[in-house]
Amino acid sequence: MAVAELKFDLATVYVSDAQYNRNIFFGTSPQAVRLYLLYNHLFMQTLVYVFIIINLALALFEDPAVVPLPIWATSTIEIICLSAFTVRMVHYAKVIPRDKFWKDPKNICIIVILSFIDLTIYGALKATGYFAIRWSRVLRPLLLVNVTEGRQLRRAFRSIRNALPQISYVFLLFMFSVLVFSLMALKLFGKRGLLTIDGSPYFTDYLDIVFDLYVLVTTANSPDVMMPAYNYSVFFTIFFILYIVINTYTFMSFFLAVVYNNYKKYLKEEVRQLVKARRFKMCRAFSLLRETCGEGGEPVVTQAKWNHLVKLVKPNISIAHQELLWSVLDDQNKGHIGKFAFVQLADLLSIQVITVKSQPHPIQICFPSMYNSSVSRFIRNVVHHRMFVYVYDLIILVNAVFIGLDEENPVVSNAEWDFVLYAGGYTSRQILDIVFILRVLRLIRLVDSIKRFRAIINTLIKIGPTILTFSQLIVVVYYIFAMVGMELFKGKVQFFEPNSTSPDQEYCGNPLLKGTTFAKLNYCKNNFNNVVSSFIVLLELTVVNQCGFTAVTHVSARIFFVLFHIVVVIIIINIFVAFILEAFLVEYTVDKSDLQTSLEKKIEELEDGVDTGLVDAMESNDNELGPSEAGKQKPSLMFKIASRRSRTVDGLLQRMFETDLRTEDFNEEEEPENISFSNPAFDSV
Amino acid sequence: MAVAELKFDLATVYVSDAQYNRNIFFGTSPQAVRLYLLYNHLFMQTLVYVFIIINLALALFEDPAVVPLPIWATSTIEIICLSAFTVRMVHYAKVIPRDKFWKDPKNICIIVILSFIDLTIYGALKATGYFAIRWSRVLRPLLLVNVTEGRQLRRAFRSIRNALPQISYVFLLFMFSVLVFSLMALKLFGKRGLLTIDGSPYFTDYLDIVFDLYVLVTTANSPDVMMPAYNYSVFFTIFFILYIVINTYTFMSFFLAVVYNNYKKYLKEEVRQLVKARRFKMCRAFSLLRETCGEGGEPVVTQAKWNHLVKLVKPNISIAHQELLWSVLDDQNKGHIGKFAFVQLADLLSIQVITVKSQPHPIQICFPSMYNSSVSRFIRNVVHHRMFVYVYDLIILVNAVFIGLDEENPVVSNAEWDFVLYAGGYTSRQILDIVFILRVLRLIRLVDSIKRFRAIINTLIKIGPTILTFSQLIVVVYYIFAMVGMELFKGKVQFFEPNSTSPDQEYCGNPLLKGTTFAKLNYCKNNFNNVVSSFIVLLELTVVNQCGFTAVTHVSARIFFVLFHIVVVIIIINIFVAFILEAFLVEYTVDKSDLQTSLEKKIEELEDGVDTGLVDAMESNDNELGPSEAGKQKPSLMFKIASRRSRTVDGLLQRMFETDLRTEDFNEEEEPENISFSNPAFDSV
Repeated sequence: MAVAELKFDLATVYVSDAQYNRNIFFGTSPQAVRLYLLYNHLFMQTLVYVFIIINLALALFEDPAVVPLPIWATSTIEIICLSAFTVRMVHYAKVIPRDKFWKDPKNICIIVILSFIDLTIYGALKATGYFAIRWSRVLRPLLLVNVTEGRQLRRAFRSIRNALPQISYVFLLFMFSVLVFSLMALKLFGKRGLLTIDGSPYFTDYLDIVFDLYVLVTTANSPDVMMPAYNYSVFFTIFFILYIVINTYTFMSFFLAVVYNNYKKYLKEEVRQLVKARRFKMCRAFSLLRETCGEGGEPVVTQAKWNHLVKLVKPNISIAHQELLWSVLDDQNKGHIGKFAFVQLADLLSIQVITVKSQPHPIQICFPSMYNSSVSRFIRNVVHHRMFVYVYDLIILVNAVFIGLDEENPVVSNAEWDFVLYAGGYTSRQILDIVFILRVLRLIRLVDSIKRFRAIINTLIKIGPTILTFSQLIVVVYYIFAMVGMELFKGKVQFFEPNSTSPDQEYCGNPLLKGTTFAKLNYCKNNFNNVVSSFIVLLELTVVNQCGFTAVTHVSARIFFVLFHIVVVIIIINIFVAFILEAFLVEYTVDKSDLQTSLEKKIEELEDGVDTGLVDAMESNDNELGPSEAGKQKPSLMFKIASRRSRTVDGLLQRMFETDLRTEDFNEEEEPENISFSNPAFDSV
Repeated sequence: MAVAELKFDLATVYVSDAQYNRNIFFGTSPQAVRLYLLYNHLFMQTLVYVFIIINLALALFEDPAVVPLPIWATSTIEIICLSAFTVRMVHYAKVIPRDKFWKDPKNICIIVILSFIDLTIYGALKATGYFAIRWSRVLRPLLLVNVTEGRQLRRAFRSIRNALPQISYVFLLFMFSVLVFSLMALKLFGKRGLLTIDGSPYFTDYLDIVFDLYVLVTTANSPDVMMPAYNYSVFFTIFFILYIVINTYTFMSFFLAVVYNNYKKYLKEEVRQLVKARRFKMCRAFSLLRETCGEGGEPVVTQAKWNHLVKLVKPNISIAHQELLWSVLDDQNKGHIGKFAFVQLADLLSIQVITVKSQPHPIQICFPSMYNSSVSRFIRNVVHHRMFVYVYDLIILVNAVFIGLDEENPVVSNAEWDFVLYAGGYTSRQILDIVFILRVLRLIRLVDSIKRFRAIINTLIKIGPTILTFSQLIVVVYYIFAMVGMELFKGKVQFFEPNSTSPDQEYCGNPLLKGTTFAKLNYCKNNFNNVVSSFIVLLELTVVNQCGFTAVTHVSARIFFVLFHIVVVIIIINIFVAFILEAFLVEYTVDKSDLQTSLEKKIEELEDGVDTGLVDAMESNDNELGPSEAGKQKPSLMFKIASRRSRTVDGLLQRMFETDLRTEDFNEEEEPENISFSNPAFDSV
């Protein structure tokens, strides 16, 4: 019996690993399984994330700080975090076989980072103060990538790594083109004695030209860089038109094409391997529970064992749901299922089925006569009528128009504001802002009710989870650049509160900025003086690469901006666009999986009351409605597949490949060639 | 005999129509065929293009003009052009059946445009002068689309038309999002009394906010629009971050996705139909020339007839080339070919084969002893050696570095410049510029010799022809917007030569621009005062949508800029990007067609001297070289397939589908369902 229980435990682990796509090798001894379960425990995982967030948030308190804390405090917190990561890693090392541990570059990476950070903290503490550069802070966000179970995030990084060779070839060619154009520009404009708008010589220094033309690719200095030449002669615009067509449009599209091509190839390969690994795990679980069925010799799993397993995997599953799933798998009512059906369990479990118990309305129970009165019936009919929905939508729209209009009606709006101001002071004003915004958001409901738009909104919602992955990716990259930027530009630009009377306010506290557009446009708050403003500057650089900062430091600081542009705009934004492209195309090509359809069919059958195998799970209730309405009456226990919207693009792709793999042989002995998903080798250009 | 000749004429027309993808219905009477040949004559087509260019170029001479001409002169030229187009259209009407003519929307379009332009010219002449708006000029570029044989251009327009419904749904949702965000912005910032950098109130007018936030999508006003809110509180940046992520990145990628999705679907469908139509024409030609071969009853075409046909289709084809093609089709040396082989003729003819006659070197003929001397042999060996190529490349590179460096060496460069200045004055300086640029271009040769880059450059070259199509598309759209822009903004902004002393220079001659950034940055030359500067402004608007013009006219002029952004950036630029994406992906998936391979194999066989059927076409020449070098000796007559680079993406796609269709039945009776390529109906979102 103990052995049987152990087998069930192990099978449970396999099934839930398959369901959640976990890919960690672990020993099969009872002790190892227990350790593994602990490792995957939700509490442990949350704890790791908490420590990661604390560790990253340290940047708020370290010099240059938003809220300064003494160095011993931040160092202590950091050491606590690092210890937590170390414990987590030791735990991980215990779970997986020793040779696998040392082969995984992820772990080596963590160890190296940990020791480096440790070293620098020690050094910084020793060197008491200012000349210690905390360069290890740059490595911190990499822990976010490596310590957590951020499968998606790591995949995004792998995707970048795979695309890098091809990107670099295109980039070299692009840089070559920029260099040649710069040489031409030097020859064309250098000797004409033209002046820029600041009165400095125009296009006379080769490196300046290269930088200016590079910035033209980001469109940040678009007409300005061309104006002196254009004012001199119309024909010189031909040079810039050629440059823009070739570099700004064609090469930038090339970057997108390369990234998209790689993303597509790589994504499919990864998802295919994920599906294979999942099948492999399900086969393992099957082989633990199988028994040979009578004379046929086909290995099968009986319903009793299956029920036990499902209860272990999903403790809070309802019996009705369980019966439903079994009836989908064992569609011939044999009482046992083969390997092919068993393997589908993980997929079936990940389709969210909502069990709806149709309860009578509270009023119907307490005041049955009132509920069934003609007035009540009329109200119910009205509410269920289509026109009601339209009218309701119209009210929302009118409300929105009024929200916009009341600004122009001083009586209404001032009264509203004054009331809040006298009542609760400033904080209430902020609360009111939020209430206003929530009022406006109701409009989305209106748009969602139009069918044409719903398809687009569905895609938007499906993209949602992956946008979270991308925001993590962006945070990692921004964090690294913010740390470097703070070391380079900290304190160079000062922001003065609008009511300050300091004479330095005009040029952001730095005489070098006197008379520059940067100071004139009041960009003083765009600085690297703390981690929050650094992030905002980096966001602005992502949108348009403005680099007024080169005025306050050495010209070589331009390298920082060019590097940022390459990493964020050329690589990451393009991956984002590639992802949306693919999500859109997948959304239009993949409709439903067979599995989902079969489950839906079963549910429909149940609703029609045709299937008799599950009658015991349904309580039939006859209520007091007349025979004319009894036809519409549905069983009180109903199933519904949760909105298809919640499915991610990843899920869609997995289903897509599932269908491809279905016809392949199931072989639990053969391990998937590459369960840790090291990068498949793609042929380069 | 005359009937046979007529048959050949008709077959020739079918084959060359198939080869050049012409899709015009024409009568099969000898007279109609002659008319049709005249219609397709190169001279006639060139003439039409010349008239189109003259007609479009009229914008240079009409008020507001670069070179003013009196209104009677431009009107006369326009009437001549319009007459030419009318003649061309009447000719077209004679060629194709009457009912087809009136069904084609293209023709209706031309007729309507012609009559409208005519009407307005008449009106303008009558109304003597200034209050006549020449609004028909807007329609002119549409003639470029409709009159010429611009198949690619029309396809691009059809592609846009097909994508429009989907784009408009996304656009509506996008505008909804902008409107909701604007409402939020009004609520959040409107009452705080914030000021922009010009001192005007910040985010208080709803329509202004909508416009500002729309411009933020184009990234033109990126940090500026956010700065007042950011200076007030860091938390307000959350609003802008959300806005940028949702609208600037996600929605803009959505537009690309929709356009790309449509482009892909539509392109494939069009090319498939093109291939079908081509096959249909070849089957027609076959049925004209076929004869039943003996007892088998299989219809075939004999070599004699085939040779006659090929000579008619391609009069300057060499006998050797003709023999080569025949040997590819009739690979079993039967002396006749079936329908399957015959149909391939059009494709074979479009593979460019270069016949290379290896002639002895002139020195070898005149001075044989010198040519065979040891010194000469040494030189020949050196030149053919790999190192020679490397050294040559190095010299180019060093030369380029010197071109860059000599700027810093005043002796060299001044001497160079002074010499030219004293010698030939100003024009020589311009010539020298061109020479310098050509010197720099030599560098491309260097990059092309590196294998990794050649693949990318190949794709670039293949994209070339389609970039021409896009530039036509851009010219059409720019022309329309330039005409409208000139009516709206003509003369509002004045450009003064840099050495002018006018006090108005500071604010571009318009007091409304006093103190604006537009005047400060010296953008005065960015105006709509003639068609050339209008085009340059529109180019600048394409890159970054700066719209200082709204200061000089009514606020509603913003509509012009928003509309331009929607048409050019959201639609056309995205189609361009979609095209490059697809070109890149096709380049990586399609390698070679079977046909090309079989032709190449044949050529290889010939080079090895294995094939004996074509020995008569080759003169074998034994020269005085020793037996050791005789092995390397190639036949004096060689074939080479012209560089695969010259193939366009369109061609690649056609080959791709050719392979798909090869297995289908050949049926010359059944017309392709849609030979005029009206738009296939796609299901919408």
